[in-house]
Amino acid sequence: MVVEMESRKRVGYHVERDVMDEIVVDSVADKLDVTTSVKDKLKESMRCSGPQVKSCFLSCIPLLAWLPRYPFKENAFGDLVSGISVGIMHLPQGMAYALLAAVPPVFGLYSSFYPILIYFIFGTSKHISVGTYAVMSVMIGSVTERLAPDSDFTLWNNISNSSEINFEARDIERVKIAAAVTFLSGIFQLLLGLVQFGFVVTYLSEPLVRAYTTAAAIHVIVSQLKYSFGISATRFSGPLSLIYTVLEVCSLLGQTNIGTLVVSIVTIVCLIIAKELNSWLARKLPVPVPVELIAIIIATVLSWQFDFKTEYKVEVVGSIPSGLQPPKLPAFSMMGSMIGDAFALAVVGYGIAISLGRIFALKYGYKVDSNQELVALGLSNSIGGVFQCFAISCSMSRTMVQISTGGKTQVAGALSAIVMLVILLWIGSLFEDLPKAVLAAIIYVNLHGMMKQFADIPSLWRSNKVDMLVWLVTFVLTLLLNPDLGLAASIAFSMLTVIFRTQLPKYSLLGQVPGTDIYRPVEDYNQVTQIPGIVIFRSSATLYFANAEMYTDHLYEKSGVDVTKLLNHKKKLEAKRLRQEKKEAKKKAKETVEVSELTGNGQQSGKDVVVVVAGPQLDPSLDPSLPKAIILDLSPVNFLDTVGVKTLRNIIKDYGDAGVKVFLSGCQSCVIENLETGDFFSEKITKAVIFSTVHDAVLHCQEEDTKKLKNGTHF
Amino acid sequence: MVVEMESRKRVGYHVERDVMDEIVVDSVADKLDVTTSVKDKLKESMRCSGPQVKSCFLSCIPLLAWLPRYPFKENAFGDLVSGISVGIMHLPQGMAYALLAAVPPVFGLYSSFYPILIYFIFGTSKHISVGTYAVMSVMIGSVTERLAPDSDFTLWNNISNSSEINFEARDIERVKIAAAVTFLSGIFQLLLGLVQFGFVVTYLSEPLVRAYTTAAAIHVIVSQLKYSFGISATRFSGPLSLIYTVLEVCSLLGQTNIGTLVVSIVTIVCLIIAKELNSWLARKLPVPVPVELIAIIIATVLSWQFDFKTEYKVEVVGSIPSGLQPPKLPAFSMMGSMIGDAFALAVVGYGIAISLGRIFALKYGYKVDSNQELVALGLSNSIGGVFQCFAISCSMSRTMVQISTGGKTQVAGALSAIVMLVILLWIGSLFEDLPKAVLAAIIYVNLHGMMKQFADIPSLWRSNKVDMLVWLVTFVLTLLLNPDLGLAASIAFSMLTVIFRTQLPKYSLLGQVPGTDIYRPVEDYNQVTQIPGIVIFRSSATLYFANAEMYTDHLYEKSGVDVTKLLNHKKKLEAKRLRQEKKEAKKKAKETVEVSELTGNGQQSGKDVVVVVAGPQLDPSLDPSLPKAIILDLSPVNFLDTVGVKTLRNIIKDYGDAGVKVFLSGCQSCVIENLETGDFFSEKITKAVIFSTVHDAVLHCQEEDTKKLKNGTHF
Repeated sequence: MVVEMESRKRVGYHVERDVMDEIVVDSVADKLDVTTSVKDKLKESMRCSGPQVKSCFLSCIPLLAWLPRYPFKENAFGDLVSGISVGIMHLPQGMAYALLAAVPPVFGLYSSFYPILIYFIFGTSKHISVGTYAVMSVMIGSVTERLAPDSDFTLWNNISNSSEINFEARDIERVKIAAAVTFLSGIFQLLLGLVQFGFVVTYLSEPLVRAYTTAAAIHVIVSQLKYSFGISATRFSGPLSLIYTVLEVCSLLGQTNIGTLVVSIVTIVCLIIAKELNSWLARKLPVPVPVELIAIIIATVLSWQFDFKTEYKVEVVGSIPSGLQPPKLPAFSMMGSMIGDAFALAVVGYGIAISLGRIFALKYGYKVDSNQELVALGLSNSIGGVFQCFAISCSMSRTMVQISTGGKTQVAGALSAIVMLVILLWIGSLFEDLPKAVLAAIIYVNLHGMMKQFADIPSLWRSNKVDMLVWLVTFVLTLLLNPDLGLAASIAFSMLTVIFRTQLPKYSLLGQVPGTDIYRPVEDYNQVTQIPGIVIFRSSATLYFANAEMYTDHLYEKSGVDVTKLLNHKKKLEAKRLRQEKKEAKKKAKETVEVSELTGNGQQSGKDVVVVVAGPQLDPSLDPSLPKAIILDLSPVNFLDTVGVKTLRNIIKDYGDAGVKVFLSGCQSCVIENLETGDFFSEKITKAVIFSTVHDAVLHCQEEDTKKLKNGTHF
Repeated sequence: MVVEMESRKRVGYHVERDVMDEIVVDSVADKLDVTTSVKDKLKESMRCSGPQVKSCFLSCIPLLAWLPRYPFKENAFGDLVSGISVGIMHLPQGMAYALLAAVPPVFGLYSSFYPILIYFIFGTSKHISVGTYAVMSVMIGSVTERLAPDSDFTLWNNISNSSEINFEARDIERVKIAAAVTFLSGIFQLLLGLVQFGFVVTYLSEPLVRAYTTAAAIHVIVSQLKYSFGISATRFSGPLSLIYTVLEVCSLLGQTNIGTLVVSIVTIVCLIIAKELNSWLARKLPVPVPVELIAIIIATVLSWQFDFKTEYKVEVVGSIPSGLQPPKLPAFSMMGSMIGDAFALAVVGYGIAISLGRIFALKYGYKVDSNQELVALGLSNSIGGVFQCFAISCSMSRTMVQISTGGKTQVAGALSAIVMLVILLWIGSLFEDLPKAVLAAIIYVNLHGMMKQFADIPSLWRSNKVDMLVWLVTFVLTLLLNPDLGLAASIAFSMLTVIFRTQLPKYSLLGQVPGTDIYRPVEDYNQVTQIPGIVIFRSSATLYFANAEMYTDHLYEKSGVDVTKLLNHKKKLEAKRLRQEKKEAKKKAKETVEVSELTGNGQQSGKDVVVVVAGPQLDPSLDPSLPKAIILDLSPVNFLDTVGVKTLRNIIKDYGDAGVKVFLSGCQSCVIENLETGDFFSEKITKAVIFSTVHDAVLHCQEEDTKKLKNGTHF
């Protein structure tokens, strides 16, 4: 092993070539001059052929591509078991999340049916379980309760002199609102998918998504507190509503319904124990125990048997109509006031679904098409909106069950939808006596995984402070500004971090690693020293408008050449010289007039004086403290904007005036292009100032220097 | 010359060293392990000493530093002439810009007095002429007219049955508003200066500032149309107000006051001719003719002589009180509704002043301290606000005059303030009969320089399309959303362009320039070819959350290795092999049980089978289409966030599983730091995967390959 290490070290790096500037490289490597015009690009993308149309059609409706090739023998059993298990999970989750969305529970069941069928046809992920999702539901809840608050439906009872809420009218209105915002968010997703904007999801970086879901989970929990305590708190909307809600709940704690609280606590404790048991038994059982289903069945039976509703005033789910409802056009007139919410729903729903989809696609070796996913979710939501569903995405817990019970394709999803249909048609109405507190308990227990994401903070603190900042800011913004506005603000902040990161780069002087062509920052290494007379400067970031000024400042500082002072000093000196020379010229003129007749060279000496005055260059050899050359290593530069090009041009000009030559090295081809279009090159500045590597530039400078010395001794 | 070119080309690049990975470089160059803790950094910055306190004090009040050393002989005359010239310019501009700010003209004169004196004490730029500025004035005008609209001061005249505006009360209210917003913007500037936030100005890139001032100039012109036509249009505020105003003016054109229109046209024509003459005569005259002053004198005399006000109903300036007014505390109660406007004023005022200041500092060889400038402007505005001034910045036209008439220091500014004091005390009231249309004309003529900035569009189109987009978007946003909101939106957009630019990088495969250690994109050069068996991949941009996914996708595509398919295929193969081997093992086990007694090596062969099953690596030599190694050139990477680190880790793992080795090259030290803190390195992945240059990595791969071949033949 040691021998191998040593032998590897001894691999020789041997290069013997000419020093090459950009011109030489271009000629040796024979640079191509191909620029595709916009027109050609358009033509290219518009081209169309028979097989292309077919594959395009198939990629629009993936079902047609994969269903005919469905390996029935291998997959059917797994998909069936998995479909039934997931379908059973849909029932409690659908009803619970309907509470979050502030609509009657049956609409949560609808949302677990229609969208899943549509995703089955258009979706490309085989493993994710689309359907109701806590974060989305709470976002919808904030819309429904903002646009149809309880106060709008208060009826004044003249006889008892008290006010009462017209629950029926309120719920009808809220379902309308939820359907409208769902429809609109589906349309947004569809449009984004059609213009191939799937890439927007890349703005949702991992720390952002995790912090966002954590904060959203807290929103969810807070919104459910009233059901657990059996109090009737008003829901607030707008920024800071979370804080107002918590305060309201605290102030109403005195009115807690003991019956409800007991139901809540018992359910939560039982669920946690059962879940722990379940995960402990997971290896031994082929199918996990449907804990939540058992919980709601037991709760319903107990509630019905002991009449919780009238005996203990425990709030129950209420009437669940059997069967499906006919489609209804969404309320277009409402949509003006919910554009922002719908957009946030569209982005969040897609973001969650695609990131889960990708994880499992990677794991099981297939691809999800991000644009097709947008289309699939968009269709699910917009068609779902017509059938009065609320917006869906995909849930981690159901997806895990779907996979662990042997689900292999979207067929499992379709089967779970059929289970839902059975429930909707025949079983649903049995759950009318289920206490709402049980559903709230199911929500809490489902969210405890999200709370584990707080562990991200210490781990990000160790690995990347800026990303930790993104996490914290996203969390706080989402908490304070609610999931919709908070998302926009968080994305804006996470983009700003990119600016921050490139705005405060590390500026270093480079020196040579002894005996090599490798250049490293002198402050990082003991054995790296600057090359005498040559300043090699590198910024760790792209040079652009936000840091261009700092680049110049640091270059001045690090190179030890204060160009402004130098130029100022030079100007003064020149002005002085000019005056003196004028005087002398006058004197000389007098003298020459006197002498010219004798020698005939008066004109000659006059010209000499003019040459000295006009020469704007101060010979650097006059000032030994000045470096002979400056090399700017531009290898970390990704692009140059006009400010960047201008900065480089000014540096070359200013130092040039002071007699210091400036060379560039390590420019990428796109940077050179930017320089070309930015009118950087002129008669004075050619591509010969650009060198492939720092070492090329250094060798060039040293060669010039020795040449100058030689010339000096020659003449 | 030709000989020199040739000889330069022949400079040798000769390197003879070992191939070096990061570990070797670190040991050869002796890497330092210095990390300053946050605590030490704080201590460093808190350190304080006697001379430091003194220099800090002097840098806070620059006057004390430079005035004692004022070269009286050299500068005094120039400053005096320049001060008087600029003072004379302040008079018409101050009155005109007061119109823009919708306050009585005398407050424009105050604004040309107090702030200038304060800047004289605290400012660091010697050449800029601070004072009223058109863009700032129009921004203040939008605040005053929004918070104190005409409609609030309408009096119903019962006798004539018509409404009339209580101009006096309105103007008092507007002055109060203008002073409050000015005070607040000054406080913002002061705070920003004290926390050393001068760098925010770097967000105002040149294309942005130029587009912004152009759009603001159009706002200014539109707001003055009513004075030129003598119509009484209401001013709109909020987004799209520009369009509403133009429509309103067009609809009211029928009510044009002919007298006012004639005065406008005559003044504009005369001013343009006079300005052209002035610039033509500029070289011959020591001091430019004060065209604007002459214009207002002639106009005032004519208006007074022929009684424009009553004869032709031309609107005139009205009463100008002599003398100064006592300071008043600003209306703090109003400030809540003007925070946004005040912040926009603070940023714009500072942005304009600092960019002009820098231009002239560079030209005349001194430095302006960006944070001290913020403090100086902040004090000017906040103290000015107490004296009922409106917000100031600095004006290009006055600055040019100040310099061209020989101004050399801030003394010129102070003298111009004294000129203003004289005007305020004794002369101001003489201009009461000046038509407002003349002031509007002065504004137009002063702004025609801004219109020349439209020429930026074609020049940016040629040099940098993204910057042209920034120009256009800034222009349109400022036009539509007004200068305050428009500025914020434009800055946000210009930051987004940085994301866009790094989000769609160019991905290339690199090849070797023949006979060198230089690697360039193969698609750009004819003579550059890929090295067989090695894929060298580079993205032109930093690898971070917004493009991490694309990086992987393009790597898969360009390298021709579909890792997901490969892994999938491999898994299936392995599963098959596993089953087969199980069968065989069973068979063998049976056999060995039968044979073991004979040979005694049953256990041995069993072990062999296990080794084959457990080995997760597919030998790449099995699939000749696979590359042997992939080298990722990370030299353009500026930083890595957690997503970037994770992406690299996944790439190394996925390709590693497929039997392809991955190496990194050209990492900056900060990138290596990011990798270290991001837990990139492990027992399997050490710093030995990082090479200094691409060529090092290539040589290492080739060496490994030949070693393998040798080993292959040996055994």
